[in-house]
Amino acid sequence: MDLNSDLGESFGIWELGDDEAMLDVVSSANVACGFHAGDPRTLLTTCEQAVERGVVIGAQVGYRDLGGFGRRFIDYESADLVADLIYQLGALDGLARAAGDGVKYVKPHGALYNTIVHHELQAAAVVEAVRRYDPDLPVLGLPGSAFLRLAADAGLTCVREAFADRGYRPDGSLVPRRDVGALLQDPDEVAARMVRLATEGQLVAIDGTVIDVAADSICVHGDSPGAVAMAHAVHDALAKAEVEITAFVGPGA
Amino acid sequence: MDLNSDLGESFGIWELGDDEAMLDVVSSANVACGFHAGDPRTLLTTCEQAVERGVVIGAQVGYRDLGGFGRRFIDYESADLVADLIYQLGALDGLARAAGDGVKYVKPHGALYNTIVHHELQAAAVVEAVRRYDPDLPVLGLPGSAFLRLAADAGLTCVREAFADRGYRPDGSLVPRRDVGALLQDPDEVAARMVRLATEGQLVAIDGTVIDVAADSICVHGDSPGAVAMAHAVHDALAKAEVEITAFVGPGA
Amino acid sequence: MDLNSDLGESFGIWELGDDEAMLDVVSSANVACGFHAGDPRTLLTTCEQAVERGVVIGAQVGYRDLGGFGRRFIDYESADLVADLIYQLGALDGLARAAGDGVKYVKPHGALYNTIVHHELQAAAVVEAVRRYDPDLPVLGLPGSAFLRLAADAGLTCVREAFADRGYRPDGSLVPRRDVGALLQDPDEVAARMVRLATEGQLVAIDGTVIDVAADSICVHGDSPGAVAMAHAVHDALAKAEVEITAFVGPGA
Amino acid sequence: MDLNSDLGESFGIWELGDDEAMLDVVSSANVACGFHAGDPRTLLTTCEQAVERGVVIGAQVGYRDLGGFGRRFIDYESADLVADLIYQLGALDGLARAAGDGVKYVKPHGALYNTIVHHELQAAAVVEAVRRYDPDLPVLGLPGSAFLRLAADAGLTCVREAFADRGYRPDGSLVPRRDVGALLQDPDEVAARMVRLATEGQLVAIDGTVIDVAADSICVHGDSPGAVAMAHAVHDALAKAEVEITAFVGPGA
Repeated sequence: MDLNSDLGESFGIWELGDDEAMLDVVSSANVACGFHAGDPRTLLTTCEQAVERGVVIGAQVGYRDLGGFGRRFIDYESADLVADLIYQLGALDGLARAAGDGVKYVKPHGALYNTIVHHELQAAAVVEAVRRYDPDLPVLGLPGSAFLRLAADAGLTCVREAFADRGYRPDGSLVPRRDVGALLQDPDEVAARMVRLATEGQLVAIDGTVIDVAADSICVHGDSPGAVAMAHAVHDALAKAEVEITAFVGPGA
Repeated sequence: MDLNSDLGESFGIWELGDDEAMLDVVSSANVACGFHAGDPRTLLTTCEQAVERGVVIGAQVGYRDLGGFGRRFIDYESADLVADLIYQLGALDGLARAAGDGVKYVKPHGALYNTIVHHELQAAAVVEAVRRYDPDLPVLGLPGSAFLRLAADAGLTCVREAFADRGYRPDGSLVPRRDVGALLQDPDEVAARMVRLATEGQLVAIDGTVIDVAADSICVHGDSPGAVAMAHAVHDALAKAEVEITAFVGPGA
Repeated sequence: MDLNSDLGESFGIWELGDDEAMLDVVSSANVACGFHAGDPRTLLTTCEQAVERGVVIGAQVGYRDLGGFGRRFIDYESADLVADLIYQLGALDGLARAAGDGVKYVKPHGALYNTIVHHELQAAAVVEAVRRYDPDLPVLGLPGSAFLRLAADAGLTCVREAFADRGYRPDGSLVPRRDVGALLQDPDEVAARMVRLATEGQLVAIDGTVIDVAADSICVHGDSPGAVAMAHAVHDALAKAEVEITAFVGPGA
Repeated sequence: MDLNSDLGESFGIWELGDDEAMLDVVSSANVACGFHAGDPRTLLTTCEQAVERGVVIGAQVGYRDLGGFGRRFIDYESADLVADLIYQLGALDGLARAAGDGVKYVKPHGALYNTIVHHELQAAAVVEAVRRYDPDLPVLGLPGSAFLRLAADAGLTCVREAFADRGYRPDGSLVPRRDVGALLQDPDEVAARMVRLATEGQLVAIDGTVIDVAADSICVHGDSPGAVAMAHAVHDALAKAEVEITAFVGPGA
């Protein structure tokens, strides 16, 4: 099982998250690309730290929206979005190669991630950007999303993601952030859920139903001390259950 | 002899220069990288147009300064400048590869170009960025500059540039922009000077002295109808004098 | 009748529109505020040119989106939008006061203008921003829009706008840009329509129906030589019909 | 004696400093204006918090340089700098008025502050911007700087500033940041120095010399827990010594 987390999200003087702590936990680093977060020096440093630890680097592409951290939907024309994404992929890949490795997968960020669950035009634009940049790059997304469906149609390798700290509905979708049960807070409970997911492919939904969830990667967060502790709990519980934590692609130039 | 020009300098709704007209004249296109000019969609289109015509793509990297078009000196820390430049190199290379080719050389833009004629720290930062990104990329610069000296020391291939429309002083330096004789306006005179430069390696300086100028590439501008006409005049005079116009590196992925 | 036009939309080296030509035609200048267009030096110059001619200055506020010229819908949180708009209002007002006058009305730009025709939350955010900045500032908008309805409810002065070069549907709404008949091209026809609008309050809709349109201001464009010519045609036809062209508020500090 | 501190320096998701803690200590808040730091929503909130506590709001204007936090010298043309500064003054003033007060003084930030100690052209540009925006606004600066000299020549009210946590040289200038003794760390020592400054107009320089320092305001920092504690120590020591802590201008619209 792969563990992924969002990293490289500082900007200039402003720090966000504890990249080094998270790089000791995860197997895959979703590194920002400068449009929603991440000045180039931060990104280069994060890539170097990832390479030192053998953590695989992915490009976390997003909308051009520093002020909103990429969390505001923007109604891009497709051709603009395709070009903005190729630009970000190339930029991070350049930094990752300078750090000794390279970008090995793509994960959309924030509002773009959520939008392409259902927005066919933007989902197609992300697929086109990856295909034009490098059709061998796997993409990370939500199972059942328009994005992964179109990516599969285009021949891209699709990596299905589950969220450690989110509640699920009986149909396998996430409990919306504003509803009760959206966010799980107890590290031990979360860790136990992820062990069951990794070993049995099952999760308990918010109504108590046991559902099947197929996941190739688990997303953990690192934007608060509590989040880092939860990530450690998931990591350690998986290790204790003899689930190997390993990226879905190998590092290396 | 190579002919180079600055291209891809539109941004969003704002257009600058006539890229298609200039791509019919030059052998090398210095394409902006988004920090001083060039939104990603413009850059992708310019790269595609260059590839269609067999014009070689170079990365015109600059300071992060849209409002000042990269023409304001900025006192960067070296580590910030190195990372900003690698980011730009990767971004344009990604777009150029999506267009079917790739970045084949590097030319600094505007205030960065002028600064590294003498500013050792920033010159060294540009050299380090290119070296870390791809030590096989040639760099285009002013003969006698700190930049080309440090680039040569670091083992980079150095391409020496002359300016078609600029007056020269007897010591081979350019007449400063604010002085009389800085800018030449007569297309026929400029064309004749460039033929002499290409065939004899000589130019007439502003005081009438004949000086030796070693150049591998001639920079022509395309930011006004008059500039495009002058570029054509230079191109046609060189062709008539049987000087082959060809890039210093070949295109192709 | 007031004539308004979008001005101050250059940015740094990039020029857009012919502000001086349009300032000789219009009575009200919708000056950009730096978020979708307009670097501060351009804005100050445009304000100075407006003041010289006695043209009233309005603030054309928009989304923070230079790359998309404010034409992409952005799903802002209300509190962010309110603050972004107050910031823009204050910034332009400062420049306008330095030029000898001040901001006298507010007109939203681009995607924000179109969004608040129906998007209640964003319309309310614009109203709140104006109310908090200066409740005496009139707002310019589309008759029948959520924006003007909420503005009137909040006690703001509402100025109803018609578009010189746009086709209308029988219900008084605009023909969508992508449909046939959306854009009118004949300056004489447009001028005649605007005279009828100004003198009789009527327009001929796209299906031939004569409809009542109440307008306090007519929007003309200046982003191409043809647009400037059409603006002149409208101005001259109104003058010939003895319709006084005058702003809905007076200039002066 | 006035106590001032830099506030409103968060940006979007990124937080910097503890504005509320510092607003309980200082009498004057140097609020960022969006160019080096401070998104509009943060700035509005900081202004509201200042108004609640009766703390006077000043505009901390800077270079347009989010990535470098305004700490990189930028070689602006004067007309560009003047317009950029008026834009910032107006923007913050708009937010401050929406919060119930208004901008009451101006303090340049970071590299701009340091540059105009000696750079006559940029110092003159800052003076011109303030004079054009509102000639009644006091300016805060370093005693002996070109800035305060030109400001006084132009008839602006000049407020002389001392730095609580900086070492001084015998000539009254600051020990450069990279030298030993530049930064003082002991809250009790710093507090005692500031009491002596406030009551006797004297400080002990780095070589032990007692020097005269005329100051109308003391700058304290709040960008770390230690900095906040030191600010409290200065505040409490001044209060104990019966030095009234009060802004050099009054709040109120």
